[in-house]
Amino acid sequence: MKKNIAVLPGDGIGPEVAKGAVEILGAIGERYGHKFTFRYGQIGGSAIDRHGNPLPDETLALCRQSDAILLGAVGGPKWDQNPPEYRPEQGLLKIRKELNLYANMRPINYYASLLESSPLKKEIIEETDFLIVRELTGGLYFGKPSERTYRDGMEAAVDTLYYEREEVKRIMKLAFELASTRNQKVTSVDKANVLESSRMWREVAEEVAKDYPEVTLEHMLVDNAAMQLIKNPRQFDTIVTENMFGDILSDEASVLTGSLGMLPSASLSESGLHLYEPIHGSAPDIAGRNKANPIAMILSSASMLRHSFGLEEEADTVEQAVRSILDSGRRTADLAGSGIPYSTSEMVEAIKEEI
Amino acid sequence: MKKNIAVLPGDGIGPEVAKGAVEILGAIGERYGHKFTFRYGQIGGSAIDRHGNPLPDETLALCRQSDAILLGAVGGPKWDQNPPEYRPEQGLLKIRKELNLYANMRPINYYASLLESSPLKKEIIEETDFLIVRELTGGLYFGKPSERTYRDGMEAAVDTLYYEREEVKRIMKLAFELASTRNQKVTSVDKANVLESSRMWREVAEEVAKDYPEVTLEHMLVDNAAMQLIKNPRQFDTIVTENMFGDILSDEASVLTGSLGMLPSASLSESGLHLYEPIHGSAPDIAGRNKANPIAMILSSASMLRHSFGLEEEADTVEQAVRSILDSGRRTADLAGSGIPYSTSEMVEAIKEEI
Ligand SMILES: CC(C)[C@H](C(=O)O)[C@@H](O)C(=O)O
Ligand SMILES: CC(C)[C@H](C(=O)O)[C@@H](O)C(=O)O
Repeated sequence: MKKNIAVLPGDGIGPEVAKGAVEILGAIGERYGHKFTFRYGQIGGSAIDRHGNPLPDETLALCRQSDAILLGAVGGPKWDQNPPEYRPEQGLLKIRKELNLYANMRPINYYASLLESSPLKKEIIEETDFLIVRELTGGLYFGKPSERTYRDGMEAAVDTLYYEREEVKRIMKLAFELASTRNQKVTSVDKANVLESSRMWREVAEEVAKDYPEVTLEHMLVDNAAMQLIKNPRQFDTIVTENMFGDILSDEASVLTGSLGMLPSASLSESGLHLYEPIHGSAPDIAGRNKANPIAMILSSASMLRHSFGLEEEADTVEQAVRSILDSGRRTADLAGSGIPYSTSEMVEAIKEEI
Repeated sequence: MKKNIAVLPGDGIGPEVAKGAVEILGAIGERYGHKFTFRYGQIGGSAIDRHGNPLPDETLALCRQSDAILLGAVGGPKWDQNPPEYRPEQGLLKIRKELNLYANMRPINYYASLLESSPLKKEIIEETDFLIVRELTGGLYFGKPSERTYRDGMEAAVDTLYYEREEVKRIMKLAFELASTRNQKVTSVDKANVLESSRMWREVAEEVAKDYPEVTLEHMLVDNAAMQLIKNPRQFDTIVTENMFGDILSDEASVLTGSLGMLPSASLSESGLHLYEPIHGSAPDIAGRNKANPIAMILSSASMLRHSFGLEEEADTVEQAVRSILDSGRRTADLAGSGIPYSTSEMVEAIKEEI
């Protein structure tokens, strides 16, 4: 199989972990006889520095000519004081919108070997395994107006939470499809006791549920969901929610298992051009020091093998390799506790050897 | 001292816990020679049933003639299918808006004696003690438009996140005032990398901070805050945030210590007429069974004694009584584990005896 992969390393630890993923994919290509071609593009702060634009047209064109996209991470204190359009995050928001990456999927799995790293008690977190499906191209993130207003000497600011019914339907269907391949339960999270958009969200959920009689639908208010994630994370199978709630809840969920540095995500489009990135950020504090945990990025590339290229066995091989390295006790600094930490490159090397 | 207290028991376990608080206040009145007059009003589902209105004018008038308001809880499955205007929560939203209760304060304290009830590991949760200051009368909750739109056969829904600069200033000042009496640190939570309202929020925070040189200001993105609350709750002193973020984060925070049934809240106005209510909801599943934990409601009334009436000693007495009952191992069903639970009325009786 021949595939073109766009690699957008981004900022902070992005380049280090992206390099790791590329090496692993190279090893997979060698072992299974695939030809992966990696082409690099700029995004985020580094793109602002070189092109004055967090998402240059060249990058977008590169992505459109590729079969899948691997993204490291964007952002850092260097650009925090920039005006809104010149912030690294704008690159991320723009690529989502331009490529219509409407669904962000974040699986939250517990790793038995990482139990000590979880802030939660063992009996709460054990066996947790759920998926958050976050709407990624609508809601408060993109609604207009989003601006400052001045009237009678009074300043105000407004943002707009806007959803078309069809947008909600699209993400809801995906959530039910995914739940069908999992434990047959969808938890739709909204704030229907306050927001009109949430009431529409709930209606659409009920409507779509009719086509999936084998899947149980449950509605949960977002404030309650924020509690339930901590009190009893095992109750969840597939959570589906709008953009802002999804941002908050998926970050909350990502620390439950103590494995933030290990969690991949996939952002899906209808066109088939998908983007894969770790859940963690650019971690400027440890950037360039060969300390970052490359596993989230490596698992993101495994997710790419499976979902974009249909390479099940190859994806399994990567995931197995990661699991056996962890079982053997090898850890990067984020998870090493009082043990001796592996560097980023040592970790990549170890996983490569397993493959 | 003579005071008129409006008691709005509401729905579910509301009446049971409100009754408990009234008894405790009665005992305090007797011991310290105050005359508290309790006058009852309807709110929520029970008000819909009797008056066809979740906040009847009589209730509002009663509140306006009182020195402080005690609220139980509202809501229940019975009214969940009602049209938006006839839902119990509307009573809550309306009373906040009508009485200009712009600031909700939720202290999150860890109780050494309840450590086992926390979902978090001991070393994470120990010594946690922070305050969430949530803006309560603005943002997505009240912005217009909040409606369904139909255009070219396409249905959509819109909600509006709107803040005036002065509204932000008011809550920010309060947060800094409160932080001054605590550990001198304000964490202002926003989503300034996406929302214009958050960028204004951040500007106002910087501006107000100048008047409080002894208080440290830190900005945190809401998604990161949702993580940090779990990873390291001890880092917080005073958190200030807008209405919807506050709703989500304060509910998340309320389960960290394992003492949801014990957490009071106060909603403050500029006029001096404040409202006190437990953080927990109406818990319809255990309503009417004399099982509910009355402590959150009782501590809310202690907060009333302190903040509305300036009765420091009396408030301390109530809080001390609660603490010694807990230290002696007495628990209601929510916290009893495998022990024998106290009923609501037994718990109230025990606390009363301490007083
Ligand atoms: C960087 C930021 C704009 C982004 C978001 O809020 O979507 C990030 O938090 C994420 O979750 O991918
Ligand atoms: C009942 C609901 C409208 C309310 C809110 O969202 O403010 C509740 O969750 C709260 O936090 O008091």
